Amino acid sequence: MTDPGRRGPYAKTAERRSEIIASATAVFAAYGYHGGSLRQIAKDLDLGLTTLMHHFPTKVALLEAVLEQEDAANPDFTGQSRRDGFVPGILAIVERNLERRELVRMFSIVSAEATHPEHEAHAWLLRRYAEVTATYAELISFDRVAGRITTDGDPERLGQLIMSGWEGIQIRWLADGSDPVAAMRLLLDALLVPAVRPE
Amino acid sequence: MTDPGRRGPYAKTAERRSEIIASATAVFAAYGYHGGSLRQIAKDLDLGLTTLMHHFPTKVALLEAVLEQEDAANPDFTGQSRRDGFVPGILAIVERNLERRELVRMFSIVSAEATHPEHEAHAWLLRRYAEVTATYAELISFDRVAGRITTDGDPERLGQLIMSGWEGIQIRWLADGSDPVAAMRLLLDALLVPAVRPE
Repeated sequence: MTDPGRRGPYAKTAERRSEIIASATAVFAAYGYHGGSLRQIAKDLDLGLTTLMHHFPTKVALLEAVLEQEDAANPDFTGQSRRDGFVPGILAIVERNLERRELVRMFSIVSAEATHPEHEAHAWLLRRYAEVTATYAELISFDRVAGRITTDGDPERLGQLIMSGWEGIQIRWLADGSDPVAAMRLLLDALLVPAVRPE
Repeated sequence: MTDPGRRGPYAKTAERRSEIIASATAVFAAYGYHGGSLRQIAKDLDLGLTTLMHHFPTKVALLEAVLEQEDAANPDFTGQSRRDGFVPGILAIVERNLERRELVRMFSIVSAEATHPEHEAHAWLLRRYAEVTATYAELISFDRVAGRITTDGDPERLGQLIMSGWEGIQIRWLADGSDPVAAMRLLLDALLVPAVRPE
């Protein structure tokens, strides 16, 4: 367990992987998935293409690693939303995303590209939409029973619309800096009719 | 005016241009602006690259022609909205877009890409956001005075949010076929509180 001869290289591999993921996020955010190349990602790190491909043998393997960052970044969204409410739970992520501009941009571009049935990330996008919608619907139902929100709308349709609105709001923020927290508050307020208006 | 020797080539040029624009829409919709190439667009039409570049000397010139289709497709949105209401005016375009899938996809991808300040279409995107938001705000104010909607929210913020929500709703539709007309109705109903609910 404490053999330094083994720990060294492992730590180094993890560090190298996370450098590559960061570079890939920036390149996909600037050029899209189709437009970004492994060569460019390697070049930005002064790495050889062979070294990069030792860590990520294909472009889609690297894309998957990049996409997984998002889920890893919000590990306790569901627990926090049950405790404090769905509206504050969502607004906390919108706020946190202010610090993750290029990751959000990469997400926005890849999502739009991946609507195409032949895109390598199409299955990932469909899975993500289904999972997120189900989670939101469940949290909306939970908050309605708890008396935190007073909408009488269908939780699934509301959850889907909140997710879609959020996507569009983030694209606008990336383009011209329009406050995404204020826009999400307005959307959540209108759709969910909180018993106490979101601050 | 009726000299066939002159009319022939002009008509032919217009036809060729519109074929190139249609091919570019499909290629940008599949690969994004950065990922799509003039070579691919020409190849899909069995055209030489030189012939294509005779009509569109640069990639960005072709992108601009592609983007202009959108505005040309809805020439009387403002007039129609004043006459019949903003909500039916918007819903009519959402319905019409069901028939323009690849154009909408191209728009979604290029908008996400063009959030980047160095993208060739960044200035276009900012101009479009500002213009559309101003138009929506004006139509919302008009409908409120006319008693068609009962929201007391700020027209500019509402207009911006409707535009953003619409973008996200269309991306979802492109991905998994979720009904964009029903989603837009729900959004407009919650944000604008029509005196008569949108059918």
